[in-house]
Amino acid sequence: MKNQRIVLASRPTGFPTVENFRLEEVDLTPLAEGEVRVRHHYLSLDPYMRGRMNEGKSYAEAQPLDQTMIGGTVGEVVESRHPRFAVGDRVVGMGGWQRYATARGEGELRKVDDSVIPLSAYLGAVGMPGMTAWYGLTQIITPRPGETVCVDAASGAVGSVVGQLAKLTGCRVVGIAGGADKCRYLTEELGFDAAIDYKAHPNAKSLYQALKATAPSGIDGHFENVGGTILDAVMLRMNAHGRIAVCGMISGYNGEPIPMAAPQLILVSRLKLQGFIVSEHMELWPTGLRELAEHVAAGRIKYRESIAEGLENAPQAFFDLLRGHNFGKQLVKLI
Amino acid sequence: MKNQRIVLASRPTGFPTVENFRLEEVDLTPLAEGEVRVRHHYLSLDPYMRGRMNEGKSYAEAQPLDQTMIGGTVGEVVESRHPRFAVGDRVVGMGGWQRYATARGEGELRKVDDSVIPLSAYLGAVGMPGMTAWYGLTQIITPRPGETVCVDAASGAVGSVVGQLAKLTGCRVVGIAGGADKCRYLTEELGFDAAIDYKAHPNAKSLYQALKATAPSGIDGHFENVGGTILDAVMLRMNAHGRIAVCGMISGYNGEPIPMAAPQLILVSRLKLQGFIVSEHMELWPTGLRELAEHVAAGRIKYRESIAEGLENAPQAFFDLLRGHNFGKQLVKLI
Repeated sequence: MKNQRIVLASRPTGFPTVENFRLEEVDLTPLAEGEVRVRHHYLSLDPYMRGRMNEGKSYAEAQPLDQTMIGGTVGEVVESRHPRFAVGDRVVGMGGWQRYATARGEGELRKVDDSVIPLSAYLGAVGMPGMTAWYGLTQIITPRPGETVCVDAASGAVGSVVGQLAKLTGCRVVGIAGGADKCRYLTEELGFDAAIDYKAHPNAKSLYQALKATAPSGIDGHFENVGGTILDAVMLRMNAHGRIAVCGMISGYNGEPIPMAAPQLILVSRLKLQGFIVSEHMELWPTGLRELAEHVAAGRIKYRESIAEGLENAPQAFFDLLRGHNFGKQLVKLI
Repeated sequence: MKNQRIVLASRPTGFPTVENFRLEEVDLTPLAEGEVRVRHHYLSLDPYMRGRMNEGKSYAEAQPLDQTMIGGTVGEVVESRHPRFAVGDRVVGMGGWQRYATARGEGELRKVDDSVIPLSAYLGAVGMPGMTAWYGLTQIITPRPGETVCVDAASGAVGSVVGQLAKLTGCRVVGIAGGADKCRYLTEELGFDAAIDYKAHPNAKSLYQALKATAPSGIDGHFENVGGTILDAVMLRMNAHGRIAVCGMISGYNGEPIPMAAPQLILVSRLKLQGFIVSEHMELWPTGLRELAEHVAAGRIKYRESIAEGLENAPQAFFDLLRGHNFGKQLVKLI
């Protein structure tokens, strides 16, 4: 039996290209005792993957060359030599950019129930992106009812959950997204109080004016997925003792870092900025995922997916994601 | 009876000059019921005063024009119409740049004991600077024994207490200061493990190399009094989950802010940066001041003072402070 996988062929300089990836066909070897074979239904594409493609200091190991690209996956067990996994089980794991994964069951796979919640949601609102939103909001921003919370990349897999959780907490929520469609989605479908199209604002000053109009009482908590000009503008609008959860700096991934224009605002407004990666806080996942699953099952948290078809289209879908062309959680359908 | 005071005559553009201040002689009016007259022994000069001289958004009210410059003072009660204050009492307050203050006793003055601890120390290690050090270290950096703590402006009133408190916690302590004398003072008199003369390092890269040599295990906690290049270099050397207490951004006070070169390190190293001003945390002062007083009385916290003589020399001493020419806590002796 054959497997298809995509490996990192070379490290990008600047924006990645198709040459950085290579699609390979490889034989599937027989399972060893304790191993499980998973046929992937969906692969998750996420901005963090861009960081892994670089060498050098990051919070995580660099993606090795000529190895299967890292990535979250959901699928079904098609063969098992592990007592706790049976053929047909639905599982979530870090299976990578490939059609089949061979996993050591314990620790690498988590069984999930797709009878109420669709399998793909375990890669989104009830998966790593949802937990990222949950952690940053509840553990760093710690919003109180009546406060104003801002989030950028707000229609994305993380941002949309941040905003909806903040609404459920009783906050005023302002979302920043790219384009009128995404902004309409935030206010009309997700219940955000206001949305700002950052593409309509050429600089931090203009964006600041939009924040002034939509966050008339200032911003108490901000969930940062983007960085750069957006962060500069939001910092100008933060209230005293505001909290900023730093989850993404996508603008800085391609080479040169983007300086923070006015770091003295950290002092002037007594801000807290805190970076985090959710995989370092596994002890909170059971609590967070249970809450998220309840909200999704009850329809209190909605989500949208952007689905590419076929492993061979994963690189292009990834580039679109980095450019913000996706709308909602970016997935690749593999069956 | 006459009082002498210095008022803010005009707001500076860039570095302040003598023209921004005006020395006035004014009559002392009779005390009203509940008021106390204090003859100042010492005036404290502090970097925050530069910020108050500006108009515009800051964490505190701007210093009003033609009013006595704000400032911490210690002195003795020379006349009292308040039942809890008697002539001869030693008191600390925000009496301002003047020889006599007229205070409403309750809330504006705090009686202190100068039998063990010298009166001037209540403006330094056992006063606002000491509390600033205590708060940033114990409430934001929260160091554990064996961790490495860094502090800049390290021979100053705040920095010297930060480093000594961190040593008492069992940390490795690296101080950054300007000049060989101050560096020698840190290691030989205050017990710092290492000192870096920032004047010997023309840029962040060079300073980073010095931090690499003196903090071989990286930096876990940093107390930021300066900002700019120093902060950039320290951030490069921070360990994962490092904490930075942001207390001063003196480089940014004179006009243009200094951008933060690599804010993505907040994410990469999962840092927490938190700005604070200690006067917003008065509930912790009794605890902090008690600890500081015990350490000072026992000789575990040492300090140095830089004393200018006479109110008329306060502006020049203030300029020297802003240029880092002082060595230890900057005071003006008023008797």
